[in-house]
Amino acid sequence: MPWNIETTPLKTKSPVPSDIAIASEVTPKPISQVAREIGLNEDEYEPYGRYKAKISRPIPKSTDNFGKYVYVCGITPTPLGEGKSTVVIGLAQAFGAHLKKPSIACIRQPSQGPTFGIKGGAAGGGYSQVIPMDEFNLHLTGDIHAISAANNLIAAAIDARVFHESTQSDAALYNRLVPKAPGKPRKFTTIQKRRLVKLGLSAEADPESLSAEQKKDFARLDIDPATINWHRVVDMNDRYLRQITIGEAPSEKGLTRSTGFDISVASELMAILALANSLADAKRRIGSIVVAFSKHSPARPVTCDDLGLTGAVTALLKDAIKPTLIQTLEHTPIFVHCGPFANIAHGSSSAIADKIALDLVGREGIVLTEGGFGADIGLEKAINIKCRATGLKPDAAVIVATVRALKCHGGGPPVTPGAVLAKEYREENVELLSKGLVNLKTQIENISTHFKLPVVVAINRFSTDTDAELDLVKSESLKFGAFDAVITRGYELGGAGVVDLAKAVERATKEASPGQLTLLYDNADSIKKKIEKVAKNIYRAGSVEYSELAEKKIQLYEKMNYGNLPVCIAKTQLSISHDPSLKGAPSGYVLPIKDIKVFVGAGFLTPLCGEVQTMPGLATRPAFYDIDIDPETGVIEGLF
Amino acid sequence: MPWNIETTPLKTKSPVPSDIAIASEVTPKPISQVAREIGLNEDEYEPYGRYKAKISRPIPKSTDNFGKYVYVCGITPTPLGEGKSTVVIGLAQAFGAHLKKPSIACIRQPSQGPTFGIKGGAAGGGYSQVIPMDEFNLHLTGDIHAISAANNLIAAAIDARVFHESTQSDAALYNRLVPKAPGKPRKFTTIQKRRLVKLGLSAEADPESLSAEQKKDFARLDIDPATINWHRVVDMNDRYLRQITIGEAPSEKGLTRSTGFDISVASELMAILALANSLADAKRRIGSIVVAFSKHSPARPVTCDDLGLTGAVTALLKDAIKPTLIQTLEHTPIFVHCGPFANIAHGSSSAIADKIALDLVGREGIVLTEGGFGADIGLEKAINIKCRATGLKPDAAVIVATVRALKCHGGGPPVTPGAVLAKEYREENVELLSKGLVNLKTQIENISTHFKLPVVVAINRFSTDTDAELDLVKSESLKFGAFDAVITRGYELGGAGVVDLAKAVERATKEASPGQLTLLYDNADSIKKKIEKVAKNIYRAGSVEYSELAEKKIQLYEKMNYGNLPVCIAKTQLSISHDPSLKGAPSGYVLPIKDIKVFVGAGFLTPLCGEVQTMPGLATRPAFYDIDIDPETGVIEGLF
Repeated sequence: MPWNIETTPLKTKSPVPSDIAIASEVTPKPISQVAREIGLNEDEYEPYGRYKAKISRPIPKSTDNFGKYVYVCGITPTPLGEGKSTVVIGLAQAFGAHLKKPSIACIRQPSQGPTFGIKGGAAGGGYSQVIPMDEFNLHLTGDIHAISAANNLIAAAIDARVFHESTQSDAALYNRLVPKAPGKPRKFTTIQKRRLVKLGLSAEADPESLSAEQKKDFARLDIDPATINWHRVVDMNDRYLRQITIGEAPSEKGLTRSTGFDISVASELMAILALANSLADAKRRIGSIVVAFSKHSPARPVTCDDLGLTGAVTALLKDAIKPTLIQTLEHTPIFVHCGPFANIAHGSSSAIADKIALDLVGREGIVLTEGGFGADIGLEKAINIKCRATGLKPDAAVIVATVRALKCHGGGPPVTPGAVLAKEYREENVELLSKGLVNLKTQIENISTHFKLPVVVAINRFSTDTDAELDLVKSESLKFGAFDAVITRGYELGGAGVVDLAKAVERATKEASPGQLTLLYDNADSIKKKIEKVAKNIYRAGSVEYSELAEKKIQLYEKMNYGNLPVCIAKTQLSISHDPSLKGAPSGYVLPIKDIKVFVGAGFLTPLCGEVQTMPGLATRPAFYDIDIDPETGVIEGLF
Repeated sequence: MPWNIETTPLKTKSPVPSDIAIASEVTPKPISQVAREIGLNEDEYEPYGRYKAKISRPIPKSTDNFGKYVYVCGITPTPLGEGKSTVVIGLAQAFGAHLKKPSIACIRQPSQGPTFGIKGGAAGGGYSQVIPMDEFNLHLTGDIHAISAANNLIAAAIDARVFHESTQSDAALYNRLVPKAPGKPRKFTTIQKRRLVKLGLSAEADPESLSAEQKKDFARLDIDPATINWHRVVDMNDRYLRQITIGEAPSEKGLTRSTGFDISVASELMAILALANSLADAKRRIGSIVVAFSKHSPARPVTCDDLGLTGAVTALLKDAIKPTLIQTLEHTPIFVHCGPFANIAHGSSSAIADKIALDLVGREGIVLTEGGFGADIGLEKAINIKCRATGLKPDAAVIVATVRALKCHGGGPPVTPGAVLAKEYREENVELLSKGLVNLKTQIENISTHFKLPVVVAINRFSTDTDAELDLVKSESLKFGAFDAVITRGYELGGAGVVDLAKAVERATKEASPGQLTLLYDNADSIKKKIEKVAKNIYRAGSVEYSELAEKKIQLYEKMNYGNLPVCIAKTQLSISHDPSLKGAPSGYVLPIKDIKVFVGAGFLTPLCGEVQTMPGLATRPAFYDIDIDPETGVIEGLF
């Protein structure tokens, strides 16, 4: 396939202007042109406005035509982030606009929480950005809104069901669920027939023929309210919703319950969309979501399908399952799709986006995709959860490293958002850097040893970095076993500053060992064995300690046949260990597992190493203070 | 302008198949074709998928080219609804596909709450429908989601501000709101400058120059949590969120608060978008929203602008302010935009949609738009609130009446959703009908007398109606002063069944008295005088009784200069009075005003005649039980 992307050279300025100033100087190409250039036929995309499109091309069933697949991850970051998105977008610009290689970068959709909260948008930075930046950061094509709606439909249905079951007799409940319409035969709906089968009855049963006991069994889910594990969501930083009591209106007759809201990207539905291989796979996963357990002894799992929700929830997500096409500052293609949390979930953009992209670029092409947080989290989960579930296999990994973060790992003072950076970070300090390189070493070794992938280190250069510092990172990276280590300057120069990195990445993909994915554990391993393999091999823990609660959950889940799911350990992103204060490469410590959640629909167990905050808050002066819109032109300011 | 709409004749069947069966037999035209046919240039619309588009044509500043403007409203309905949407869509099909007259119908976007709850979708019915029905009912172009997001950003900001003010000193608060960035001069943002001016300070003040007292005044909004009147919203029937306690996580340090969620369409932002004349007008209204009052004495209103939110909230709504273009079963154009509640808000689709439509159809054309509930509510509010604020002026009104609802007004047995209809409604009963006609009489007289509009009665025919019944409605309507009364059969026959009505409507618009809008009251009238004018002239109450709370609110609002806003009385839709059991044409009763809310952004006062439910619930067997999606084809079933 010809790959002929019309690009316009960037006129870069120094010092680098604000992100919004750069973005607003570039007029995006019509999205229909971008679509055409990457080989999408008219019926394979649907424009959403002028500069965004949903990709409706069928998901490829074969990998025969796939290009090279590169996972971009990082060293353990500081709370400021180390520019992983900027490197991914810079690589896309380098490949597409400078090396003229068929290539697509697949990135995650940002939550609106951080956009209006502390961080501003998430469209890359400087001369490596996605445009239009405002559309990228606000709504995009509505996927997160669709996920919120679907998530909250499930939540409303759970509580309403508990209410109706507690206020109605068995007969009334059954008669309402399977109503007698005047002049029509009484019948079960498709979704109710699945419940009949689950209960050991015939799907073709006549609604009148069930015994009183069978009717009761059919009509009563008997949800134990204490076990409801489904939170409502909102795509906003709303700290007051972290813990709430609901049902306090007189109409709910005292059936109050303590619960909470998460930010939308923490919804299991987000993880499901990101892991699904098709709409059919998504529907199956949605139906199997376990939202609570029943009061029966032994307790039964209560699923979305039991609640009659599978079809409606899938219908709400029918467009959200399609990736969105958008472009970089240099007019090269970007796929945006999903953005699950990287702690309680696996943190990668969607398998569907990656597969369509791999097929579109073809055998000579390359697809870049992003893993959340450091490689110990993002890449480990990408391999053992996403790739295992979807048949994808990376050809190489890029680790983004900064001198700043490495100095922090060497014992530098704390790096805090909003505060002035300490002078250790603004001045040359080879000693600190040198000590901190151990974090990079661990990440490289993990990838080489356990996933058998060539690693290219992308040294994301800041203006305060010195040559001595950069040279040290480069030479040490090679000693640690990296395939190559290259300085990248996408923020300052756009794709032109990332060409060397792109060339190294291209070479690395040719080194990839062919054949099967190298996984860290078998799904058939016991839950503890799986946790321990990740803890010891990747996190370098000496041992794992389980709380009483975690032990109980392990027993429960193995009994319920959830023991064969992969594990998605939720720990801090600020250390390779569970303790954010342990910088560098901690080892030999005890990794505590406090609790284990199960996400049957997403298909993983999530052992928790501590409290995970799934609802951020707004600071005293949130980012929204800077956001304005000119009502005459519609131009938005202050998103950055 | 040529008006050449490509239509395909409907092949109607008898008995009428299910809505989804009818809708799925018609392939929509590409939306770009619909856009072109109604005279939109390439740069005046943005496709959202294949069958929907956002209209980005500038809002006309002059009414010179406007066509005729027809408001479709109804008699007092039963809880089943009397088919107003079906008549509007049928009229659009009759004008556009049969009479070949330039015409656009403007309708409201349905909430997803009823779609998944009790009612199914809201795309009309039978052979008068909007397609694709699933896209119309699910997400559409994301406007309600954008409103939810914007509403909930405001909510999160209010509580976060209360939290930060309660846990920080004046100086800390000020320093965080106006931060010192290293190496940069400290400065106020645009939105903060507006607050300075509001406090009597100079917009050009140096942040360092303020006195301690001025800094405190600037930084502390001192919100009285008991006065916060801003609810969070979700576009779902979630009864457990009606009343909740928030802030119960340890991180909120005991600052809990009792509040609730409304369904999204009840958000003041929905009313604002529906009433705005432009993005600039919307922005001004958003900034002026009063979310709470301060603890100062006298209390000060706290606005969105004080919270720094005006720009961010407007940015979130920048696409939602554009109407959506979609089509009918006969491929004629429909504008969908906004859908505010018709009780606490004014219940009409947007002025922007109406204006763009009026300009597009041109002087020879006709625009149909819809008022919520009966004419006593929907049309009164359309005239006195929407038309007053936007300069629109209807040329005629259509009142949709059914034999069923008129029999109910004549003393027929209760009509209850889900229950079998009593035989009085299934068999001829001229006596009951005859008694109930008084409701229609009142609605016609109200419109003729107080709004000076010609009225066409649309008798929405059901299969059980007899000729004697239909003839009686027709002849009596003419006696009551209707311009005409016509039987309409859009459900059975599509546009072909509504041609006679369309012709009558067209003739009626030529009767309209030219010149100014006839309003019921002056905004300068006292609050009580305005309420009484509506109560006595439209609702036929003998007198109005105010609760102590309402009296206090009147005093407060007049002191705060809100006394000159129009009134948007919230009462039941099931009676012309405040009491749903009073059918027919109650008169001489006492109308109770229990409380009065103010919506400064939307620009109206809402006197409440009783409790208004702003969050519906899910029934035991919600509509979602019937919804399914074929994962191979993406075809959705069970929306109706």
